[in-house]
Amino acid sequence: MKALVYEDVETLIYRDVPRAMPKEGEHLIRVTCVGICGSDMHAFLGHDDRRPAPLILGHEAAGIIDEGPLKGLRVTINPLVTCKTCTYCLSGRENLCPERQIISLPPREGAFAQFVAMSESNLVNVPEAVPLAKAALAEPLAVSWHAARLALEALEASADRKALVIGGGAIGLAAALALRSMGVPDITMIEPNADRRAFLRDHCGETASATCESDADLVIDAVGFKATRALASARVRPGGVIAHIGLGEDMGGLDIRRMTLQEISFIGTYTYSAQDFRDTAQAIFDGQLGPLDWTERRPLSDGARAFADIRAARVAAPKILLDPWA
Amino acid sequence: MKALVYEDVETLIYRDVPRAMPKEGEHLIRVTCVGICGSDMHAFLGHDDRRPAPLILGHEAAGIIDEGPLKGLRVTINPLVTCKTCTYCLSGRENLCPERQIISLPPREGAFAQFVAMSESNLVNVPEAVPLAKAALAEPLAVSWHAARLALEALEASADRKALVIGGGAIGLAAALALRSMGVPDITMIEPNADRRAFLRDHCGETASATCESDADLVIDAVGFKATRALASARVRPGGVIAHIGLGEDMGGLDIRRMTLQEISFIGTYTYSAQDFRDTAQAIFDGQLGPLDWTERRPLSDGARAFADIRAARVAAPKILLDPWA
Repeated sequence: MKALVYEDVETLIYRDVPRAMPKEGEHLIRVTCVGICGSDMHAFLGHDDRRPAPLILGHEAAGIIDEGPLKGLRVTINPLVTCKTCTYCLSGRENLCPERQIISLPPREGAFAQFVAMSESNLVNVPEAVPLAKAALAEPLAVSWHAARLALEALEASADRKALVIGGGAIGLAAALALRSMGVPDITMIEPNADRRAFLRDHCGETASATCESDADLVIDAVGFKATRALASARVRPGGVIAHIGLGEDMGGLDIRRMTLQEISFIGTYTYSAQDFRDTAQAIFDGQLGPLDWTERRPLSDGARAFADIRAARVAAPKILLDPWA
Repeated sequence: MKALVYEDVETLIYRDVPRAMPKEGEHLIRVTCVGICGSDMHAFLGHDDRRPAPLILGHEAAGIIDEGPLKGLRVTINPLVTCKTCTYCLSGRENLCPERQIISLPPREGAFAQFVAMSESNLVNVPEAVPLAKAALAEPLAVSWHAARLALEALEASADRKALVIGGGAIGLAAALALRSMGVPDITMIEPNADRRAFLRDHCGETASATCESDADLVIDAVGFKATRALASARVRPGGVIAHIGLGEDMGGLDIRRMTLQEISFIGTYTYSAQDFRDTAQAIFDGQLGPLDWTERRPLSDGARAFADIRAARVAAPKILLDPWA
């Protein structure tokens, strides 16, 4: 099969590789759409020790089961594989399973390829009326859905629910969409890139600001750098909550004195529970997260250029979807 | 009246000052015991912009109402004065009131004095059987009670409740006592000072370790320095909670990458709600927090020496109580 292989730092090669081999209980899935995530870019730049070259990246995929009794079933893929037996798995926090694996991290190859293998319990059936290009967004949307849910659960019942979302990429946009679908009416987005702000306005119906002067009860940091954490901890109201998704810089930025004196909570969030993934997929199918027509589609064979364009900030769309069969 | 006045950085003078003057609705209280807090030491060293000299420090006090119809009533003092009308006050989070005042911060003088003024709603009646030297501990114990309560509320119901308390001073010891009274059986304390560890063992029945190799679902950082936050964020289990009380250093220390990937929550905590203060006082009165006999008592007139001894680490007891009438 064809795959886009991360061969070395800043080097992606589109080439033939052995076809994905399903293990027992797994299905072979013909990938029709696979999104490029910030973490793929992070790995491409050599900044993620968890993803050493050579490796097939990509974990935001939808496609069609290619073999067996379920052949032809349209599915979106939860890429997080967990043990199902530990305390975390049994309490619905599968993302904390100590045995967790995710496609695109060894030992599992990713989905920047024509086929990928995955067990049935990680697949969500996609209704015929829903394009697979929308269904492929379930993974990044679930990341933000999960963060929004945890943040709202942590917020005191008596608090206002004014929200600030830092970052206008796919995760930030998805956080705004998730919060709105959960009943949060007043959401401010912060995005420093003017092209991206224009795209958000023209194609997503979202107003983003370059800087932030207002405060909020709930802040979602969808970037994860010192500067964004500094902004989050300066702008969150007393008693408020910061939900932190990004992995931009490992340390620093938080004003811990202010967070202590004003009783601010910081919640690290990573991926999603299996239920969050299913809930997000259902919200997509039901149209709760909007038309989701803000993606840009390119052939997987041109994937290396897509990475270069994202890196050079030449892409205004929050998400590029690659097509392994174009 | 006599008072111990913070005159300049590292300068405390015991001298005559005008007697405290109750405003309308306030009582004049004859102070019988007042504890030295880490934040008093912080101010004494010139490290707290909120407490500029000249100022009477001290906010952990118990005493006897000296005038009026309630004359003779034995009370412990909640030093936190709030507006009672804002959203925070009305929802029982008075410590987040934007108008909050605390005695020993301008415009309110503190309790290192023979008298202090305080409104009746901030006073808790102390039963005759309870010595005022124990009742004066309500304030520091309430700080830890509040942090322990918030941490337990934030912890997932399915999580274990193994606890780690960093710091064996009064706040750390009080956190261990509060957690135990709330039903947490497995508590590890960390205290680097060998004299203090020996005191905790011999006088408080608590085992503290110099270093920590084990992990915990719940960590209370009762110190608040970079190094203690680094320890907290390294030792807390996936999905766990760090409750942070201290104001040692303003920034840094947290391993935010780990906190994000392992979904760790950090909760800033400051003082207590009015209900927490009352609950803590009741727990003292009921003996739930142990004999509370681990304090050292000195005359207020010798307060400057007490500060010097604490600073030079010559005090093993977690708390010195000063007596303005000795």
